[in-house]
Amino acid sequence: MLKIALSQQNYHIGNFAANTAKMIQAIRQAEEAGVDLLVFSELSICGYPPRDFLEFEDFIQQCYAGIEQLKKETARVGIIVGAPQRNRQKEGKDLFNAAWLLHEGEVKGVAQKTCLPTYDVFDEYRYFEPAYEWSVIPFKGKKIALTICEDIWALGDNPLYRIAPMDELVKLSPDLMINISASPFDYDHDEDRKEVVRANVLRYKLPMIYCNATGSQTEIVFDGGSLVYNAAGYLVKELKYFEEDFAVVTMNDEMYRTGGADVTLRTMDKEMRVSKINDPEKIIDFLTAGNNIEQIYRALVLGIKDYFSKMGFSKAILGSSGGIDSAVTLAIACEALGADQVRAVLMPSSFSSSHSVDDAVALSKNLGNPYDIIPIKTVYDAFLETLAPVFADAPFGIAEENIQSRSRGNLLMAIANKFGYILLNTSNKSELSTGYGTLYGDMAGGLGVLGDVYKMQVYALARYINRKNEIIPQNIIDKAPSAELRPNQKDSDSLPPYELLDKVLYQYIERHQGPQEIIDMGIDEPLVRRILKLVNTNEYKRNQFCPIIRVSAKAFGVGRRMPIVGKYLT
Amino acid sequence: MLKIALSQQNYHIGNFAANTAKMIQAIRQAEEAGVDLLVFSELSICGYPPRDFLEFEDFIQQCYAGIEQLKKETARVGIIVGAPQRNRQKEGKDLFNAAWLLHEGEVKGVAQKTCLPTYDVFDEYRYFEPAYEWSVIPFKGKKIALTICEDIWALGDNPLYRIAPMDELVKLSPDLMINISASPFDYDHDEDRKEVVRANVLRYKLPMIYCNATGSQTEIVFDGGSLVYNAAGYLVKELKYFEEDFAVVTMNDEMYRTGGADVTLRTMDKEMRVSKINDPEKIIDFLTAGNNIEQIYRALVLGIKDYFSKMGFSKAILGSSGGIDSAVTLAIACEALGADQVRAVLMPSSFSSSHSVDDAVALSKNLGNPYDIIPIKTVYDAFLETLAPVFADAPFGIAEENIQSRSRGNLLMAIANKFGYILLNTSNKSELSTGYGTLYGDMAGGLGVLGDVYKMQVYALARYINRKNEIIPQNIIDKAPSAELRPNQKDSDSLPPYELLDKVLYQYIERHQGPQEIIDMGIDEPLVRRILKLVNTNEYKRNQFCPIIRVSAKAFGVGRRMPIVGKYLT
Repeated sequence: MLKIALSQQNYHIGNFAANTAKMIQAIRQAEEAGVDLLVFSELSICGYPPRDFLEFEDFIQQCYAGIEQLKKETARVGIIVGAPQRNRQKEGKDLFNAAWLLHEGEVKGVAQKTCLPTYDVFDEYRYFEPAYEWSVIPFKGKKIALTICEDIWALGDNPLYRIAPMDELVKLSPDLMINISASPFDYDHDEDRKEVVRANVLRYKLPMIYCNATGSQTEIVFDGGSLVYNAAGYLVKELKYFEEDFAVVTMNDEMYRTGGADVTLRTMDKEMRVSKINDPEKIIDFLTAGNNIEQIYRALVLGIKDYFSKMGFSKAILGSSGGIDSAVTLAIACEALGADQVRAVLMPSSFSSSHSVDDAVALSKNLGNPYDIIPIKTVYDAFLETLAPVFADAPFGIAEENIQSRSRGNLLMAIANKFGYILLNTSNKSELSTGYGTLYGDMAGGLGVLGDVYKMQVYALARYINRKNEIIPQNIIDKAPSAELRPNQKDSDSLPPYELLDKVLYQYIERHQGPQEIIDMGIDEPLVRRILKLVNTNEYKRNQFCPIIRVSAKAFGVGRRMPIVGKYLT
Repeated sequence: MLKIALSQQNYHIGNFAANTAKMIQAIRQAEEAGVDLLVFSELSICGYPPRDFLEFEDFIQQCYAGIEQLKKETARVGIIVGAPQRNRQKEGKDLFNAAWLLHEGEVKGVAQKTCLPTYDVFDEYRYFEPAYEWSVIPFKGKKIALTICEDIWALGDNPLYRIAPMDELVKLSPDLMINISASPFDYDHDEDRKEVVRANVLRYKLPMIYCNATGSQTEIVFDGGSLVYNAAGYLVKELKYFEEDFAVVTMNDEMYRTGGADVTLRTMDKEMRVSKINDPEKIIDFLTAGNNIEQIYRALVLGIKDYFSKMGFSKAILGSSGGIDSAVTLAIACEALGADQVRAVLMPSSFSSSHSVDDAVALSKNLGNPYDIIPIKTVYDAFLETLAPVFADAPFGIAEENIQSRSRGNLLMAIANKFGYILLNTSNKSELSTGYGTLYGDMAGGLGVLGDVYKMQVYALARYINRKNEIIPQNIIDKAPSAELRPNQKDSDSLPPYELLDKVLYQYIERHQGPQEIIDMGIDEPLVRRILKLVNTNEYKRNQFCPIIRVSAKAFGVGRRMPIVGKYLT
C-alpha cells in the first residue's frame, strides 16, 4: 500500500536555497515516516508567483539546478515538486508550468499545466504554454493522473477553458489523482475548493491528493488547507490553514473504493470567479459574518508577518489617529510582529478632537506597544508660511487638508527611514474605492493592511479583536468616523453612509455589476452613479498605492487593472 | 476597382460617444472620396487597451451599441471596426477580440483574433478566447483575409504561437489581407513593423492594408504609421507618425501583382520581443542615436498631451532644480501643453549650489513659462524641530535627505491641489532602476515623463532640444549630476558612472540578461551584482510610482511585473 505525504510549505519567491532546504527537511521527515511519495505544492522550487523573474534564463537555470539538487535526495522517497519546464518545441511560449516526479535520483515523469489562469491576480499565460498532450505517470504499480491547480477547475456548465485535462487523463485509466496547487485565499473561496476537489473525485471516481501552498507573497495569501479525498467522495484529511503542515495518508483499499452518493454539486465554472451574494439585504451580513471576519483576521496577520520576514524587516511604524482604521491595523500588527516591534505615532493637529489622543494612548496601553506623541502644528504652520506668497488669500480647502495629511506621512517616513521601520498603511477599501485619502499622506506606506477590507468589515474586525476583552477602546468603535482635517469634519460630509456605500462598492468591485444592475437592486440612481464615478476617477490614486493584502475575491492592485485615462462611468 | 481608406485615429478608452463621433466623421470623409471600404484600428469602438472594463457586461453592451450606431452609417461605405464580440460557446472566455465588417446597415462578417499577446504591457488572454475557426470575408467580389494586430506576428523560426492564422486563411484563396492593429511605439520597434508586414506580403503573395491606432493611453503610446504594401512587397503608402491621418488607396491590378524579389527577412519571432543590441561597446550609441532620440521626444510630447487632455486637465507643475532631468522634462512639457500652462517651482535649500537657481531661472526665461522660487528652509527646519525629541542625537543621514525631498514634493502637491495642476515627475530610468530617489518626494507626481529614459538619453534629449538654439542652458548640461541633499553631494558618490550603469541596466531590463551574461561582456562582476541587487531590492519603490510614458521595449510599470518580496539577485 502506497504511503503518500503532503508537505504544505511557505516558500519565498526566488529564494532557491531556502526553498530547497525546506523541501529536503520534509523529505527527511517523509523518510522517517516510511512514505513512498511526498507531494509539494505548485512551483515550489521558486515560489509562486515568480512573475517576470520567469523571463530570465538565469532564473530558469536556478529552477533546474533545484531539481538536480532534489533529485539526489530521492533514493528512498519519490517526490512531486513544482517547477517551470522548458518547452522543447519552437512554437509557443518557452516554458511550461510543470509538476515533476523525482525518484531514485531520476526524473520519472513530468505533467504540464493545461488550464493557465489569466485573470485577477493570475498571469500564467504571460509565461507558460498550455499542455497539449497528457499522460499518466506510473509509480510503484499505480498510475497517477497528475494535474496542477487550475487544471481541476475546468468542470461545470460554463467552464473557462476548452479542455479539461482530467477528461483526457481518465481515458488512460489512472488509479489516483494528485493535484499540486498554489491556490490563494479569499474569504469567499474556501468552500469552493473543497467542492471542486470533491466534484472531481465524484466525476472521475478516483481518490485525490490535493497539496496547496501556504504563506503570503506580498499581496497574495496562500492559506494551505490541503485535502485528501477518497474515491467515494469523503474527506479523509484536511491540513491546517494559514500555516505549514505535513500529513501522511495510507492508500488502502478504502481510498480507492467508489460509490459515494452522487450529490448535486454547485456549478464550478466562471461563476465561481465572482463573489456570490446578490441580494442587497444580505451583503453587509455576508461581509461581516463571523467566519469571514475570523479568516480575514488570520490572513492579515500572516500577510504582515510574511511581508516583514521576506523583506528582511522586523519593525513596523504607523500613525495612530484614535480612529477605527488605525486601531484595527495596530492591533493586527501587534499580533503579527509582537507589540514591542510596532511603534505608534500620534500626530494631533488643532482639528483633532479631544478624545483622539486619549483614545490612541489607551489603545497602545492595552496593546503594550511603544508610542510617541508628535504634534504637527509646527510643520503645518511652516508649510502655510512658505506657501503664503503663492496661496495669497485663497480660502482654506482641500490643499490645506492634504498638507496636514502629508505632514503626518512625512513625519512617519522620516522616523521609518531613521530607525529602519516599515510604515504600515491603514486606509480601508471604502476609502480607497472613493479616493477619500491623500496621496503621499494617509495613503503612504509599504503595505496596505486594510486596503481590501470595507469599512463595515473594519468595525467587525474591531469587534472580533475585542471578543475576549476590550483591546480597542469602545470609544474608538463608537465615534463617528472623521479624518479630522477641518473643524468638526465627518466622513459622512463627503461620503454616503458606509452601510450603503459598501453595498454598492461590493456589487461594483467584487461582482462586476454595472450601474443599471445596481440601481435595479433598489438603490438610488444618482447615488449609484456618484459612487461609481468616484471609484473610476480615482484610479490614478490607487495606482500609486502600496501592495494590499488580498482577502476578497477582488482586491485593488495587481488583480484589478483599470485604464487611468479611461472615461467610463465618469 | 476597390477604393480602400485607412483611418488612423486617436481614441479615448471607454469614451464611446467621442470615439463613434470620430469614426462617423471619417465615414463622411470616405463617402466624399468615393471609398468602398474604410478601415479603422483594433478595438476602435472602446479604445485600446480597455483592460478590466471588459469584465463589465455594461461596457460590452456599450461596445455593441456602438456597432449598432455605426451600422446605420454604412449605407454607402463598408467599414471595418474593432470591438469585442461575445463568445457564444459556453467553453472558454466570454469574449473575442474581433474585427467587424459593417456594410449596408448589416454585419457582413467578423474575424476573431487568434494570437493574443500576453506579455509586456499586453494582457489579452486575460479577456479573450483565441479564434479557432477562420474564414475569409467577401466584399464586392473580393475575399478579404482579415486579421488583428499580433495575428501577423506569428511567423519566423521561433514563433510565440502555435497557430499562424494567415496559414489557415490562405487556404481559402483570399485576394488581399487587412490587418487592424493597436501596435504600441517603442524606439526599437518601428522597423520591425514594416518588416513584419512585408514578410507576410511576400509569404502569402497578397497585398496588405495595415491600419494602426495613434495617441497615448496613460503609459502606452501608439505611433500610427499605418501601412499599405502591394503584393510584390513594395510600400505603397505610409501614414503619419504620432498623429491622426487618413489615406485612400485604389486597389488596381498593380496592387495584386506578385513577383517582388524574395529577399531574406530577419527572423520575426520571440527574438523581436527583446531589444537587439548585444555588443556592450554599441549600447550607449544605440540608446542615444539621433533617430531614436527624436522619436522618444515626439512620443513624450504626445504622451503628456494626451494624458492631460484625456484626464481633463490642462496645466502642469513641476520642480525645477537646475538639473538636467527637470530641465528636459520642463522643455518637453512646454512643447506639449504650451509654456504658459507649465509652472516651474524652484525650491532651493541650503545644500543647493549657487548655480542651481540661476540656471533654472535662465531655463524658464528661455522657455517663457511661469516660475516661482520657494525656499524650503522653513519647512525643513520645522520637520527637524518637530522630530528632535525622536531623532535625539542621531547623525545627519538619509532620513534628513529624504525630508528635504519630501518637503519639495509636498509644496508641489499643495500648489497642484490649490490651483488644479497635475504634477509632472522628472525621475529618469537610471534613478528609478537603482532606487536613487525618495518615495513621496522626488518620486511624487501624476505622470512620469522620463521614467523610461536612461540618464545618458536624457543628455541626448537635452542636446536634441538645443539643436537649433540654446533652450537648456549649457551649464545645466555640463554640471555633474547631484541631488543636492547634503554638502557637495554628487550622484557619483552613490552610483557608478551613468555610462557604465546604463549599459548594465539596458542588458538586464531591456534584454533580460542575467548576471553571468553581463559579466561575460567584460563588466566588473561586483559592479554588475551591485547594480542588479539595487534594481531588485527597489521594486517596492517603483511599485508606488506613477505611470511612465513607455518609449522602450521594456518600461517599468504595467509591462514589467516583479515580485516585491522576491529574493532573487539580492
